[in-house]
Amino acid sequence: MKCERYRFDGSKPCDLRKLPCDSKADRVEKAEILTRTESNLKEMASLHDALYAEGREGVIFVLQALDAAGKDSTVKHVMGGLNPQGVVVHSFKQPTSEELQHDFLWRVNKALPPRGSVAIFNRSYYEDVLVVQLHDLQKSYQMARRVLEEDKKKFFRKRYRQIRDYEEYLYDNSYRVVKIFLHLSKEEQKKRFLERIEKPSKNWKFSAADLRERALFDKYQDLYQEVINETASEYSPWYVLPADQKWYTRYLVSEIVVKTLKSCHPAYPRLSEEAQAALAQCKKQLKDD
Amino acid sequence: MKCERYRFDGSKPCDLRKLPCDSKADRVEKAEILTRTESNLKEMASLHDALYAEGREGVIFVLQALDAAGKDSTVKHVMGGLNPQGVVVHSFKQPTSEELQHDFLWRVNKALPPRGSVAIFNRSYYEDVLVVQLHDLQKSYQMARRVLEEDKKKFFRKRYRQIRDYEEYLYDNSYRVVKIFLHLSKEEQKKRFLERIEKPSKNWKFSAADLRERALFDKYQDLYQEVINETASEYSPWYVLPADQKWYTRYLVSEIVVKTLKSCHPAYPRLSEEAQAALAQCKKQLKDD
Repeated sequence: MKCERYRFDGSKPCDLRKLPCDSKADRVEKAEILTRTESNLKEMASLHDALYAEGREGVIFVLQALDAAGKDSTVKHVMGGLNPQGVVVHSFKQPTSEELQHDFLWRVNKALPPRGSVAIFNRSYYEDVLVVQLHDLQKSYQMARRVLEEDKKKFFRKRYRQIRDYEEYLYDNSYRVVKIFLHLSKEEQKKRFLERIEKPSKNWKFSAADLRERALFDKYQDLYQEVINETASEYSPWYVLPADQKWYTRYLVSEIVVKTLKSCHPAYPRLSEEAQAALAQCKKQLKDD
Repeated sequence: MKCERYRFDGSKPCDLRKLPCDSKADRVEKAEILTRTESNLKEMASLHDALYAEGREGVIFVLQALDAAGKDSTVKHVMGGLNPQGVVVHSFKQPTSEELQHDFLWRVNKALPPRGSVAIFNRSYYEDVLVVQLHDLQKSYQMARRVLEEDKKKFFRKRYRQIRDYEEYLYDNSYRVVKIFLHLSKEEQKKRFLERIEKPSKNWKFSAADLRERALFDKYQDLYQEVINETASEYSPWYVLPADQKWYTRYLVSEIVVKTLKSCHPAYPRLSEEAQAALAQCKKQLKDD
């Protein structure tokens, strides 16, 4: 599987700047990739159907990226292949005042799907160690002085541990959390921003704030790398995917979804002998009707 | 403080059978205790008022006990002293089917109060390592085979760790979780059950299932002891309180609430100089009105 080389589970370090933003290194052919994506989407749908029927494992795909890396379009084009019954997409925006009155995982927990369902988190609790850390937002939170007066480095190291603990806890409680970082080049971001400004139908996707965040591109890269290395694990891996070509990103995401659903070994519930006998009885009754 | 000797934070083992179910060992006088309880209730109310105004820390009191140990009456008589605005009582009953489709802490998280508030958990996630473990309820849960096929001991050891992690996480996110076990003797439980059966106004509190659980009294004691020892910590201690005399239990709980609220150092928010100047301006305007 092509996605394997982009998988980080803590066994090797992730060096973002050495990882590709496009498909060149994988020497693929676009036409073939498109065909394979189609076939993955079909396989996803059937695996998801069994997962839902069985109701034993919940699966969460976390999408993280800088602006314009293609989070929304991935949700639309890849996850759109799943039966909406049994899928929930949750976009984590700036926290509301009610959310800020609770611990940072409170809203995540509320968004957790029931077992048997798939959730897609468009951004996530990772923002609480990314944008929050970069802009020092935690300083303005209403928390006890014993928490606020802590050394900043220590504060975020703790959060990394809390995230690791949480993901391990979820794994042990019959969930899987798979994290995907869409790795976009600075040049491609510029191109996509320009397109958003020039095309009236895309204007709504752009705001001046996006440029202010772009100025921090390198700082975000460094921080993402730290965060990925601190939270990649066997039970909850990161995938760092080239994001400059949407057709290739989508293909890799479809591979990851297939692989993850397969690892749950979903199987339609089998009836007990008693229940089967009852079914046979019903069949007879219907035929005689 | 009398409650100190009943506090377990992991630094010494808890041996339930050596701990008293009544006040004898503390050589107290009932009349004096009642007066001191009254004064504690007043202090609680004023500390709680500042905690609410400041909104920096959330406080959770977890009440656990066998049947008829006085959980409901503790909530009524001690916590009734707090301003209901800023207090929430949550009774954890048998999990609903929606709750069973999620991890066991899901419903706990939903019941978490905003910072600045106090929550009382009448029973809690501790049931997930008590009644669930004793009756093997986890076996019937819809979870992945990799989870269900785990060795039982290992499964519950993991849950102990998950609970410890969760409580530490809450502490680091500006919450305090204080756990209270009401330690009732088997004789006193018999007396209270008989009263529930004999007094028509108390009949609703009794069911035949209570007797089936009473038959497991000693097993529950052993398990409570294990659970307390596995989850007592400096940031989230257990208190094991004598419960045969309600007036004494209530006193000890009032002490614990005062002590816990004090440890949050609640203080009314102080206005900035600017805001104070604005207030002075408002005062002038009102007077000239």
